[in-house]
Amino acid sequence: MYGKDRIYKKVEIIGVSAVSIEGAIETALVRARNSLDKLSWFEVQEIRGHIGADGKVAEYQVVLKVSFELKD
Amino acid sequence: MYGKDRIYKKVEIIGVSAVSIEGAIETALVRARNSLDKLSWFEVQEIRGHIGADGKVAEYQVVLKVSFELKD
Amino acid sequence: MYGKDRIYKKVEIIGVSAVSIEGAIETALVRARNSLDKLSWFEVQEIRGHIGADGKVAEYQVVLKVSFELKD
Amino acid sequence: MYGKDRIYKKVEIIGVSAVSIEGAIETALVRARNSLDKLSWFEVQEIRGHIGADGKVAEYQVVLKVSFELKD
Amino acid sequence: MYGKDRIYKKVEIIGVSAVSIEGAIETALVRARNSLDKLSWFEVQEIRGHIGADGKVAEYQVVLKVSFELKD
Amino acid sequence: MYGKDRIYKKVEIIGVSAVSIEGAIETALVRARNSLDKLSWFEVQEIRGHIGADGKVAEYQVVLKVSFELKD
Amino acid sequence: MYGKDRIYKKVEIIGVSAVSIEGAIETALVRARNSLDKLSWFEVQEIRGHIGADGKVAEYQVVLKVSFELKD
Amino acid sequence: MYGKDRIYKKVEIIGVSAVSIEGAIETALVRARNSLDKLSWFEVQEIRGHIGADGKVAEYQVVLKVSFELKD
Amino acid sequence: MYGKDRIYKKVEIIGVSAVSIEGAIETALVRARNSLDKLSWFEVQEIRGHIGADGKVAEYQVVLKVSFELKD
Amino acid sequence: MYGKDRIYKKVEIIGVSAVSIEGAIETALVRARNSLDKLSWFEVQEIRGHIGADGKVAEYQVVLKVSFELKD
Amino acid sequence: MYGKDRIYKKVEIIGVSAVSIEGAIETALVRARNSLDKLSWFEVQEIRGHIGADGKVAEYQVVLKVSFELKD
Amino acid sequence: MYGKDRIYKKVEIIGVSAVSIEGAIETALVRARNSLDKLSWFEVQEIRGHIGADGKVAEYQVVLKVSFELKD
Repeated sequence: MYGKDRIYKKVEIIGVSAVSIEGAIETALVRARNSLDKLSWFEVQEIRGHIGADGKVAEYQVVLKVSFELKD
Repeated sequence: MYGKDRIYKKVEIIGVSAVSIEGAIETALVRARNSLDKLSWFEVQEIRGHIGADGKVAEYQVVLKVSFELKD
Repeated sequence: MYGKDRIYKKVEIIGVSAVSIEGAIETALVRARNSLDKLSWFEVQEIRGHIGADGKVAEYQVVLKVSFELKD
Repeated sequence: MYGKDRIYKKVEIIGVSAVSIEGAIETALVRARNSLDKLSWFEVQEIRGHIGADGKVAEYQVVLKVSFELKD
Repeated sequence: MYGKDRIYKKVEIIGVSAVSIEGAIETALVRARNSLDKLSWFEVQEIRGHIGADGKVAEYQVVLKVSFELKD
Repeated sequence: MYGKDRIYKKVEIIGVSAVSIEGAIETALVRARNSLDKLSWFEVQEIRGHIGADGKVAEYQVVLKVSFELKD
Repeated sequence: MYGKDRIYKKVEIIGVSAVSIEGAIETALVRARNSLDKLSWFEVQEIRGHIGADGKVAEYQVVLKVSFELKD
Repeated sequence: MYGKDRIYKKVEIIGVSAVSIEGAIETALVRARNSLDKLSWFEVQEIRGHIGADGKVAEYQVVLKVSFELKD
Repeated sequence: MYGKDRIYKKVEIIGVSAVSIEGAIETALVRARNSLDKLSWFEVQEIRGHIGADGKVAEYQVVLKVSFELKD
Repeated sequence: MYGKDRIYKKVEIIGVSAVSIEGAIETALVRARNSLDKLSWFEVQEIRGHIGADGKVAEYQVVLKVSFELKD
Repeated sequence: MYGKDRIYKKVEIIGVSAVSIEGAIETALVRARNSLDKLSWFEVQEIRGHIGADGKVAEYQVVLKVSFELKD
Repeated sequence: MYGKDRIYKKVEIIGVSAVSIEGAIETALVRARNSLDKLSWFEVQEIRGHIGADGKVAEYQVVLKVSFELKD
């Protein structure tokens, strides 16, 4: 495949999960799949989260760039 | 609402206004509302502008990331 | 045109070409034209590439931001 | 005063205002004054904001570093 | 709550855990709760760690910024 | 005009105003006009300021890059 | 040990694991141990991954800098 | 000690000295010792200085982050 | 030459060419030679360009820092 | 191949060519092939160059990171 | 003086000294004084150097930004 | 020499000295000379240090990139 003219698009999404950083990434990918073409790879841009009233992590928020090939 | 699996999208837009930095942000939001879902927050990426023939600011150009929740 | 309220959108794409960096930029623009409004300018974000079995550049991959005006 | 051994501390605060970026900076300074020594200067780190249900800026949030001299 | 004048403070802490990145974040939050007001959110700044004599991760060290509202 | 060989110069200046961020930008441009060729655009690099004895903003200091075409 | 003249080297490696971010870090360290001296600490530079045909994370790729002391 | 759950705090200070960069770092540490717990390490963030009427360095200003363990 | 006290100046310029990135660099250098002392080296800061009505690159704009020695 | 535990190494090299940016990348790869395992991909870190006595580009210097898989 | 409209210019220079980092900064300032107005402050951008045939530092090269007020 | 095809390698090392920043750079270079080819130049990446029980600098740790030509 390498060497062939082609084009990819990158979009920025944020996945949220109460469980873990990996959980937030999976959430983002599951839902992105519904509105985007077949995804190829992701890059983590930022890891952050909300802290609950009990002082624990209420949720992880992971900002991702996901990339996918644009077909003609 | 915190703790629930969900996903946001970030898009990058540039608002332009002859009046002020806040004006350029408002311009961007007013028009983004037409083509995007309900917006939640914005982050300023860059502030720049064009200088007129009179040597004054002809317009402010503010590059923003705006985020909104993706519903199923 | 300067001084008029308006809004631009920036999208991030990756162009691929076996020939050169400029080739990868042109690939990206040709295909982006099909799905996006009239493009105004581009900014190179990253230059990378794949190396073939012969140890030479198999392809250049150029990550670009391209911008275009959003009409009402 | 220059040339004398001395030490400053920098703290990071976020001011919020519904009115303007300058308003958010002033809010931050007014309240910081209550719990910190005499402030000397500030540096803007980030400008962001919340978008209301009407699609307009609900508030500006400005992340600042403020510095003040530590006296013995 | 949005739109009301208020101020947040950000402090930088490092949590350490032998178990996982999430574990290091939770360690940081549990202890920060003792000396700081009610925390609102965190941002991961850096992920690093120590490597034991057996060549495995001896501990994860996660540098965080945590933010909390300053009340009058 | 696009497509013609030409060259621009960027210089870095700091404008100061007691009134607002936009005021500091205008101050910088007014004075830069005296010693530089016709300016084309500006980019904000940094926003900072001095805090007066009353704990309020004494002045805004805005670091700008301004660009102008070099004629033969 | 502090205060003694000495020198460390940093090398950049990428660990890959289908399981988790921590798994990718451990993979990198296990294999680095074979070709490098005793490692002291690591710093995460980048977290990325490949997305499988099922739209889920096929693997985590973590770019690390690992450091170790150079003995005479 | 490695492997045990614990937490560090980082604070940002600026040391000033007319003599040298190392002098400015030492000034910062001497005074920080009075108001902070036992310090562990420092990281230089920025080196700057004031220039006197004679055109020589009037003082070095070094922005540091210093870290120390938070005990229960 | 190394070891001798001396001073260089860096200036920021933008070269424009319809042909290629290297062409834009050469344009910048040819014209800079007219108003500056003998140039020593350059560093590319940014690569961008304008897109024509036909959707192709109308021109490459390369932001450079060029350095040259200041003689007494 | 995706999903299998493995490790890559990144090394930083600088290729030099009098001809073009692509030429400098190819120079780097040709020589790197002699002392490194089979290379997989490269990332451009910096583009710079030397300016000759005639004021033209004497050579392009391209700083690259090249990556290759470490086999057991 | 604070609160008065005024403008500063920043220029980027490189000082070289065989002795020390502070020596390179002083070299830069001494010579800059000849061609620039009264300097106010400096910011270190980069510290680098050349290594002699004996493997020792042949010279320190310090990239500075120096700032000075532009008078009417 | 300029204009000839050639390749350099950059490696990242950390020098440690109880005396000064320059001392830490010299330590790094002395030892690097034993295991690397003839070094050409260095770039400081980070300056940090350990603080002793007496609250003073116990050692300076300087992260450097050193570069050297790769001969065939």
